[in-house]
Amino acid sequence: MSEPPLRTGIGASDADSITLMGRDLATELMGHVTFTELSFLLVRGRMPSSEETRLLDAVLVSLADHGLTPTVLAARLTHTGAPESLQGAIAAGLLGAGSVFLGVVEDTARFLGQVLEAAGSEPSDAALRAAVERAVDEAIGQGRRVPGLGHPIHKVQDPRTPRIYEIAGETGTLGVNLRALRVVDEVHRERTGRALPINGAGVAGAALSDLGFPARLLRGMALLARTAGLVGHLGEEMERPIGMSLYREVDERAEYDPPA
Amino acid sequence: MSEPPLRTGIGASDADSITLMGRDLATELMGHVTFTELSFLLVRGRMPSSEETRLLDAVLVSLADHGLTPTVLAARLTHTGAPESLQGAIAAGLLGAGSVFLGVVEDTARFLGQVLEAAGSEPSDAALRAAVERAVDEAIGQGRRVPGLGHPIHKVQDPRTPRIYEIAGETGTLGVNLRALRVVDEVHRERTGRALPINGAGVAGAALSDLGFPARLLRGMALLARTAGLVGHLGEEMERPIGMSLYREVDERAEYDPPA
Amino acid sequence: MSEPPLRTGIGASDADSITLMGRDLATELMGHVTFTELSFLLVRGRMPSSEETRLLDAVLVSLADHGLTPTVLAARLTHTGAPESLQGAIAAGLLGAGSVFLGVVEDTARFLGQVLEAAGSEPSDAALRAAVERAVDEAIGQGRRVPGLGHPIHKVQDPRTPRIYEIAGETGTLGVNLRALRVVDEVHRERTGRALPINGAGVAGAALSDLGFPARLLRGMALLARTAGLVGHLGEEMERPIGMSLYREVDERAEYDPPA
Amino acid sequence: MSEPPLRTGIGASDADSITLMGRDLATELMGHVTFTELSFLLVRGRMPSSEETRLLDAVLVSLADHGLTPTVLAARLTHTGAPESLQGAIAAGLLGAGSVFLGVVEDTARFLGQVLEAAGSEPSDAALRAAVERAVDEAIGQGRRVPGLGHPIHKVQDPRTPRIYEIAGETGTLGVNLRALRVVDEVHRERTGRALPINGAGVAGAALSDLGFPARLLRGMALLARTAGLVGHLGEEMERPIGMSLYREVDERAEYDPPA
Repeated sequence: MSEPPLRTGIGASDADSITLMGRDLATELMGHVTFTELSFLLVRGRMPSSEETRLLDAVLVSLADHGLTPTVLAARLTHTGAPESLQGAIAAGLLGAGSVFLGVVEDTARFLGQVLEAAGSEPSDAALRAAVERAVDEAIGQGRRVPGLGHPIHKVQDPRTPRIYEIAGETGTLGVNLRALRVVDEVHRERTGRALPINGAGVAGAALSDLGFPARLLRGMALLARTAGLVGHLGEEMERPIGMSLYREVDERAEYDPPA
Repeated sequence: MSEPPLRTGIGASDADSITLMGRDLATELMGHVTFTELSFLLVRGRMPSSEETRLLDAVLVSLADHGLTPTVLAARLTHTGAPESLQGAIAAGLLGAGSVFLGVVEDTARFLGQVLEAAGSEPSDAALRAAVERAVDEAIGQGRRVPGLGHPIHKVQDPRTPRIYEIAGETGTLGVNLRALRVVDEVHRERTGRALPINGAGVAGAALSDLGFPARLLRGMALLARTAGLVGHLGEEMERPIGMSLYREVDERAEYDPPA
Repeated sequence: MSEPPLRTGIGASDADSITLMGRDLATELMGHVTFTELSFLLVRGRMPSSEETRLLDAVLVSLADHGLTPTVLAARLTHTGAPESLQGAIAAGLLGAGSVFLGVVEDTARFLGQVLEAAGSEPSDAALRAAVERAVDEAIGQGRRVPGLGHPIHKVQDPRTPRIYEIAGETGTLGVNLRALRVVDEVHRERTGRALPINGAGVAGAALSDLGFPARLLRGMALLARTAGLVGHLGEEMERPIGMSLYREVDERAEYDPPA
Repeated sequence: MSEPPLRTGIGASDADSITLMGRDLATELMGHVTFTELSFLLVRGRMPSSEETRLLDAVLVSLADHGLTPTVLAARLTHTGAPESLQGAIAAGLLGAGSVFLGVVEDTARFLGQVLEAAGSEPSDAALRAAVERAVDEAIGQGRRVPGLGHPIHKVQDPRTPRIYEIAGETGTLGVNLRALRVVDEVHRERTGRALPINGAGVAGAALSDLGFPARLLRGMALLARTAGLVGHLGEEMERPIGMSLYREVDERAEYDPPA
């Protein structure tokens, strides 16, 4: 049996050089591109403009951490039992970044994608508004939530949302997804009478879509952002541990209630 | 029972604002710092200078990917079976980033840390050389490898190494760890007669140490870098899958050799 | 703030005793129940009969391992990079046990659940047949595959299937799900003219459903079975490693094909 | 390039049959061996006697669960964020089963292994006692803890310990490791004047060693046992969730204490 080649366009190396995305790592990338630019290149297959980089940096910064969330607690508790394996604690922290928390980023992107499929890729304001109305009405009619709206803590305004719009505006990267999301918010408010703010996950989904990331990989960018947050938390856990004391308290409060 | 507070200095949020590392996320961080700067801040507790950022970017870029490595294959094969869970595939890819591959980054940092403990924090060239000689001689005497030297593919020179020294030199961030590593290489060559190049993991360990990252967290920065590479590979796997065909070939080549 | 109790019925301990599922671990479980019986108890909340245990043992044995599958390869490649962390390699091996491979167990259980919802819980042969016909016709009409049928290797018969039916028959545990699956196979063959055998995952899903496991936890029993297989493979990997040589071959065969 | 075969002795399949550990899965294993026997076979390469099976069942049952431990909390919190991926929650739960909690099983086995290397494989009582004295004195002299002794909750007696000795005694499987551990306890009490009970992890390590499992794979058997416990906890989490409420309480109690 003679095996066919395994093709990849990501990376390769030989005795003298390493190549990443078709560029020489040492002479074309190191010292020339930031880690954010490299992350864009790895997924989009081309270098970002400086404006796109500025928006992507803002999105990654906005998603990196939100305090002692379930995924951070899982990472810290994993470190408590296996301090020798930092990769295990980070992996545990990423594993909870699924449909409930990170799903909103993707769900918003998919919802906007459907709106824009109906409205066309460069829709007029009227066409966009009409397509949003149909999509929002359908969601309301079916009793589904419109993704990207509402936040349990930031009830009036999620501070990340106006900031992303501001940066996208300044850099000329405010694309059709961010435009559409604003209309979604407007229409939803009119239809329901409730002012649910656009949340940080939703605005991130729209901004990443405007940057050209496919919906199926948006979660990857959020996971990248969170890895930085997890490294920070695990560094803190090494100095000011809370995993073991959290466990001890849970253990004290546990009330045994056996199955019938 | 009244529970004591759980203290964290990483992140917090209230109705109107989100705070990260003591800074307001929306007004002080988003749009003002890059993701690399935020990653530095999360671990070091202070903002980097632009020179430090440039070195950290180069290190992260250098560690992001090296083609179809065992950890990338594990991630892609995991995606083959569970395409619905991007976080699972990335977690699987990080779990193999342990002592064999990423250990060198940390081992080099620890070895240099011991040298510098003996030589003092700002040693003269002579003091540094003397401390390195003792450490290298001890390693050779005990039959241990000196970490950070040698590479199975880059036998003459690892292309990342001179580039990191160049960038550190240009930015004035070439610290005592990078200095010491160069002396380690020199002394090792003299003692053994073998020219093993400083490898990319070793030079990363020295550079991250010069940036003030503690040895126990160096693996975290490497995991961050690799997460970007894994997102790139999984994006490629979604379009040009190799996991299933790799499995089929393994299955064909598998020769059953039952236990005695 | 006074915290409410956290209630669990699984396990608890005090100075003198450990309780599991309402039973004293040392005096009522250890030495009295097998690990399989305990696993049943942990999920179903009651002890199995010896007949149920025999069927569950057969199902777990049938699912434990199928050679060098993608998940086993992921586990072995993870061990190559992080041999110090057996839990990391096993976790990596479980992470690929998602919708593609283990999904069939659950999908079959859900498909049969819908059939039985229509047919009633103790249906006559005629009622069962009628409900199966509707479900199979609907699947065929919508171009969906009927879950639990067909296997890429065992094209004529999956050897696990008749064996599960035999054991279930002998032990009087052949319930309505296994009955229904046989009718599904029959009807599917009549409708399509194709003889797709009931596969091992499908028959496991039906048998576990007959044992009363809810569809949402079936994957858990399959993961338990696979953990045993993974421990076996990692034990072999420690003595006859294939991870590193597999990587070297992939590396040789990798053909770099940069993005356009 | 013509690839060499990849040899495995664990499992294989062809069109008509599946083989596991050299036995036909359908006709020699399913219905003939329990899952515990299969697990023994997968690691030890031979079938256990019924006495060995009884001891292994007792050990697995003893290790399956201990209530709301850090690893269980990590699994439940992971389920909170990613309920669609049971394998992710179980993987997160296993990742914390590292040096702190499961390490004792292995550490005890290694400590006893060193004692027995000195004492010979079938030592007289006097030779065993002499070897234990040397090992315990050395540990005390170096300020190291003797592994397998002491428990934070079971201060007088761990209820699992006498039960394992009883079952091993009844079944004639009480081997030299369990014998040695009893002497370790005795000598430690004499030397220190402190009565630290042999803990459940320590006695499991000794029993698994007597069953012939190598120290490097003991963690694997403990992970297998815990997978069953995790499936039970996640089943409970689906019906009586505590992950989200635990997070909310942590969030309320979190006190932000920014870095200097």
